[in-house]
Amino acid sequence: MDNRKIVVIGGVAAGATAAAKARRTSEDADISLLEKGKYISFANCGLPYYTGGTIESRNKILLHTPKSYGGRFNVDVNVNTEAVDIDRKAKKVLLSSKEGEGEIEYDRLIIAVGGKMIIPPIEGIDNTPYFTMRTVEDADSVKEFIEKSKPKSAVIIGGGFIGVETAEAMLHCGLETTIVEAKPEIMPNLPQVVAMNLREYIENSGVSVKRGVFASKVEKDGGIKVSLSSGETIETDMLFLCTGVLPNTDLAEKAGLRIGETGGIWTDDTMRTSDPEIYAAGDAVEKLNRITRKKVLLPLAGPANREGRTAGYNSVTDGDVKFPGVIGTSIVGFGEYCAACTGLTYEKALEAGYDAEYVYTEDADISEYYPGFNFIFLKTVYEKKTGKILGAAASGKTGVDKRIDCIATAITGGLTVYDLEHLELAYAPQFAAAKDNLNLAGFAASNRLRGTGYIITPEEMLEILRKEKDTQLVDVRTKMEYRHGRIDDAVNIYVNELRKNLDKIDKSRPVYLYCAVGFRGYIALRTLRNLGYEAYNITGGIEAFNRIKKIL
Amino acid sequence: MDNRKIVVIGGVAAGATAAAKARRTSEDADISLLEKGKYISFANCGLPYYTGGTIESRNKILLHTPKSYGGRFNVDVNVNTEAVDIDRKAKKVLLSSKEGEGEIEYDRLIIAVGGKMIIPPIEGIDNTPYFTMRTVEDADSVKEFIEKSKPKSAVIIGGGFIGVETAEAMLHCGLETTIVEAKPEIMPNLPQVVAMNLREYIENSGVSVKRGVFASKVEKDGGIKVSLSSGETIETDMLFLCTGVLPNTDLAEKAGLRIGETGGIWTDDTMRTSDPEIYAAGDAVEKLNRITRKKVLLPLAGPANREGRTAGYNSVTDGDVKFPGVIGTSIVGFGEYCAACTGLTYEKALEAGYDAEYVYTEDADISEYYPGFNFIFLKTVYEKKTGKILGAAASGKTGVDKRIDCIATAITGGLTVYDLEHLELAYAPQFAAAKDNLNLAGFAASNRLRGTGYIITPEEMLEILRKEKDTQLVDVRTKMEYRHGRIDDAVNIYVNELRKNLDKIDKSRPVYLYCAVGFRGYIALRTLRNLGYEAYNITGGIEAFNRIKKIL
Repeated sequence: MDNRKIVVIGGVAAGATAAAKARRTSEDADISLLEKGKYISFANCGLPYYTGGTIESRNKILLHTPKSYGGRFNVDVNVNTEAVDIDRKAKKVLLSSKEGEGEIEYDRLIIAVGGKMIIPPIEGIDNTPYFTMRTVEDADSVKEFIEKSKPKSAVIIGGGFIGVETAEAMLHCGLETTIVEAKPEIMPNLPQVVAMNLREYIENSGVSVKRGVFASKVEKDGGIKVSLSSGETIETDMLFLCTGVLPNTDLAEKAGLRIGETGGIWTDDTMRTSDPEIYAAGDAVEKLNRITRKKVLLPLAGPANREGRTAGYNSVTDGDVKFPGVIGTSIVGFGEYCAACTGLTYEKALEAGYDAEYVYTEDADISEYYPGFNFIFLKTVYEKKTGKILGAAASGKTGVDKRIDCIATAITGGLTVYDLEHLELAYAPQFAAAKDNLNLAGFAASNRLRGTGYIITPEEMLEILRKEKDTQLVDVRTKMEYRHGRIDDAVNIYVNELRKNLDKIDKSRPVYLYCAVGFRGYIALRTLRNLGYEAYNITGGIEAFNRIKKIL
Repeated sequence: MDNRKIVVIGGVAAGATAAAKARRTSEDADISLLEKGKYISFANCGLPYYTGGTIESRNKILLHTPKSYGGRFNVDVNVNTEAVDIDRKAKKVLLSSKEGEGEIEYDRLIIAVGGKMIIPPIEGIDNTPYFTMRTVEDADSVKEFIEKSKPKSAVIIGGGFIGVETAEAMLHCGLETTIVEAKPEIMPNLPQVVAMNLREYIENSGVSVKRGVFASKVEKDGGIKVSLSSGETIETDMLFLCTGVLPNTDLAEKAGLRIGETGGIWTDDTMRTSDPEIYAAGDAVEKLNRITRKKVLLPLAGPANREGRTAGYNSVTDGDVKFPGVIGTSIVGFGEYCAACTGLTYEKALEAGYDAEYVYTEDADISEYYPGFNFIFLKTVYEKKTGKILGAAASGKTGVDKRIDCIATAITGGLTVYDLEHLELAYAPQFAAAKDNLNLAGFAASNRLRGTGYIITPEEMLEILRKEKDTQLVDVRTKMEYRHGRIDDAVNIYVNELRKNLDKIDKSRPVYLYCAVGFRGYIALRTLRNLGYEAYNITGGIEAFNRIKKIL
C-alpha cells in the first residue's frame, strides 16, 4: 500500500474510529487527525452522567488522550485545530489554531465534523447565558457553575435524548428541574404513548415537564426569566439548550460537495462523498434507512462509529466495503425507567408507503411467578401483506433493551411476526417468561393477520366510543379488577364464566372485549367468535386503552 | 367445525397449552385433559425457586387449578388420572385412577406426557430415599422434609439445569450442598469453558462440585452414604436425583406409534405422529433442529408450549400449521451468575458437518465508563464459508440473556457474522456499549474470515506452546497488567509503544500477540502484519487463554 496522506477532520466518534481503522489497515499511510476542541475520542454519551455525578471520575469519559491515541495508532493528532476550508483542487485543508493559520495536504480526506446545534429562534437567546451538553468543556462548565454558583433550578429547552438525560443529571444535582418541549410529547422519535410512559415517570420523579409550548423569550436579570408561548414565565438559575443537532455541513457546502435531500452530507454506501477523494462519516452525514431504502438523519454514536470504520478502511484502500445503513435503534433512560425503539414507527411506516398495522402487548419482563418482575409495554409495527416486522417501541423498568435489541436483530434478518411466534428465547423464570412478550406480540399480530385475532386498537375503540352510542363493551377481568376501574359502560363478565352468561351479550350487535393487557380478552374473543358473535378484542387491553385515552 | 372429541394426555406445559389452543380454535369440540398428577398447568421451572424460598407463595407456581382452567377453556379436566393404554382401532384411551379403570373415546388424541426420569444404575438406589424436582408434589416433599427433619446437607446427583438450580435452592435453605456430575464439567449442553465459569461461581458460593466422578453406590444407614467412583464417600442427609429426562414413550410405543432415531416420539412438522389421528407435543417428542435439519431432543418449556399450541390447533382443524423446529436456546442462573447458549456448539457444528470456527470475545455488558458493569464472556460459532452464525454461548452476571436472545434471533434470520458487525443495538451507557460485545464478535469473526484477523485460538496456542520451544509471545498490555500475570515466556511491549520496540521482535519467526480480551492484541496484530511480520492474535486474550488452559 502506498504511503498516502489521510486527513481526518473531527476526532470524536466517527473521526477517531476512522483514523484508527485507517491505521489498522495500513502502516504506511500518513494519518492526521484534526479536532477543533481540546479532547478527542471522549464518551459524549456519558457527559450527562458525569455531570450528574453518576460517573464520578472525569478520566472515565476521556477514553483517550491525544498522546495515548497518537501513540497507539501512530496518528498525528492536532487538537484545538479547526478546519476552516477545503481546497479540493490543491487537495489541502486550511487550518486555524491558536498558532495561527495553516494548511495540510491530503490524498484522501475524511470529514467527520458531527452535528451543529440547533439554536431555536428565541428572543434574547444571544444575550443570555445558556449551557449545552455536547463536549467535555460543556460538562466542565456545568459542573463548575453548579459548584460555584449553587444554582437552585434549571430549565431545559428540548425534551429529546439529551434533554431527558440532562434533566436526570440536574435532578441528581438537587436542582428543581423543568423540561420545555415544543412538541405535544417529549422524545418525538418514539411513539407518543411510549414517550408518555417515560414522561409520567419523569414527572413522578419530580421534574416538571411543559409540553406543546416553546420558549418565546429569555432574559437574564439576576436569574434567567424564560417566557413560554403559553404566557407562563419561569425563573431559573440555569438554562440548557438541548434542542438537537443538524448535520454540520458548513465545510462540505463551502467545498461544493453534494448535500443530500435530508440536509446531511451525501455519501454512497462506501462513505464516499461526491468527491471520490473525500469521505464523510458520522452525524454530518445522511444515512440510508435499511427498511425504507430512503436517506435519513440519525445522529447516534453506534452508526457514527461504524461509518467511521467503513470510511477509514476505504480511504486507505480505495476499497468498496459497504456500510449497510441504519434502522434507527435508540434508547433513553431516566432513573429506573427506560424507553426504546427500533425501525419505523407506525406513522413513519405509513409515510413510507407501507400498509402497516400494529399490536400492543404488555407483559412481565421475567416470569410473573418470580419476585421482582416489571411490566414492559410494547408496540410492534408490521406490514399487513407479509407480516414483515417494521419496527417496535417499548417502555418499562427492566428488560426493555433486550426486547428492542431482539426486534432490531429480527428487522435486520427480515423476520416476520410469524417468526416472532416461534422465536426461541432463553427462558428461566428469573430471565424471561416461557412465552416472552416478543412471542405474545407474534401471537397477537399473527392471529390478527390470519383472521382469527379480530383486534381493535385502542385508537379505533376510542373513535367508536366517541361517535357511536350504546357500544357493547364487555370487561372479561375479575370482579375485583373491574371494580378498580373500567371503561365506561362496560359490563363485567369474567372470562372463565363467559359461557354461562351469554344471555347478557346481544348477538345482533358487535361486542368489544377487553381485559388487562389483551390475553384473556383474546380467549373470550375466540369463544364468542366460535359461537358466531361479531366480537373484537382491544389490543393491549385496558392498560393500552387508558394510555391512548390520555393522548387522543 | 364438527364437535369432535379431543383427548389430551398430560396437563402441564405442552398438554395444557394444546387443550387451551384447541378450545380457542373451536367452541364445538369436546375436549378432555388427562393428568396423572394432582396439578395441571403449574410452573415446573419455578419449582427449585419455590423450594429454595425465593418464590414464597406456593400459589404462584400453580398457574391454574383444574377448576379455573376447566372453567376458562371449557375443558373436562381429569387429574389423578393416568392413561395406561391407547386402543387405536377403537380410538379409546384406557384410564386408571383412584376410582378404578375406565376409558375415554377420542377423535383426535394429543400425547403430551413429557419426560421420564433417567435413573442412573447406582447400586442401592432402589432402597434409598431420594428427592426429585419435577412436580409440585416433589417440591412439597422437599420442603416438608427440610422443615421436619432439619437436614444439614444435600448431595445432588447431576449437574444439569435442574441440578444447578436445586443446588442453589439447597444453599438458600442453609444446607451444605454437593453436586456430583459424571461428565468432566457441569452443564454438558454448554461449551466446557462457559460451563466452567458458572461452576467456579457456584463453587465460590460454597457448593462443592465433584466432576468426572459418578455415584457408584448409595445406602441409607441413619444418613445416606454416597460412594463415588473416585473412592470418596459422602455422608448426607438428603439425596437428589437430577440426572435428566428422556422422552416418555411408554404409551406411544405400546400403541405402536413411530419412535424417532433420537428415542423421542416421531412427529411431522404439524406435530402429527405416525397415526394421523394422534398428535404429540413436548418433552416426549423429538424435535427438528432448524440449523442442522436433524432430529434432536430438547426437553425445554418454550418449545413444549409452542408445540402444544401447534398440536392443539391442528388436532381440531386437521390443519397443517407447522412447528418450525428448535435451535436450542437455554439459560441457567445461579445467584448473580448466569450461563446461556443458543444454536450449535463448535463440537456439534463439526458433528453436523459444518466447516466451523469460533471467536472468543469478552466485554462489559454496559459501557465501561458507567458504574456497575460486568463482563460477559462470549463464544460465537459460525460457518467459515458463509459466515453464517451457527451458535453462541455466554456467561456473566448481567446481560447474558440479552446477547444470547439476539443471537437466537440472528440464527432464526440466517444472519452472518458480517451482519453482527453492523447490528444496530440500543445504546446508552447504562444499557450497552456503543460497540456491543455482539458487534465485537462480528468484527473479530469477519476480520478473521476476510483474512485480516489472523486469529489463533487459545486451544491452538496451548498446543503450540506444548509442542514447540522458544515460541515468540508478546503481551501488549500495560506493564502493570503484565506484572499481575502473564503467559509464561511472553515479553511485554505495550501496544502504544510497539513501533518503537520492533527490534525486540524476531521477524523471521511467528509472533503470537495477546492482550486482556483481544482488542489491543488485534491493533498490535495489524501493525505487525502491515509491517510484514507473521503475527497472530489470541482470540479472547489472556482471559480466554487462562480459562482454556484450565480445561485442556
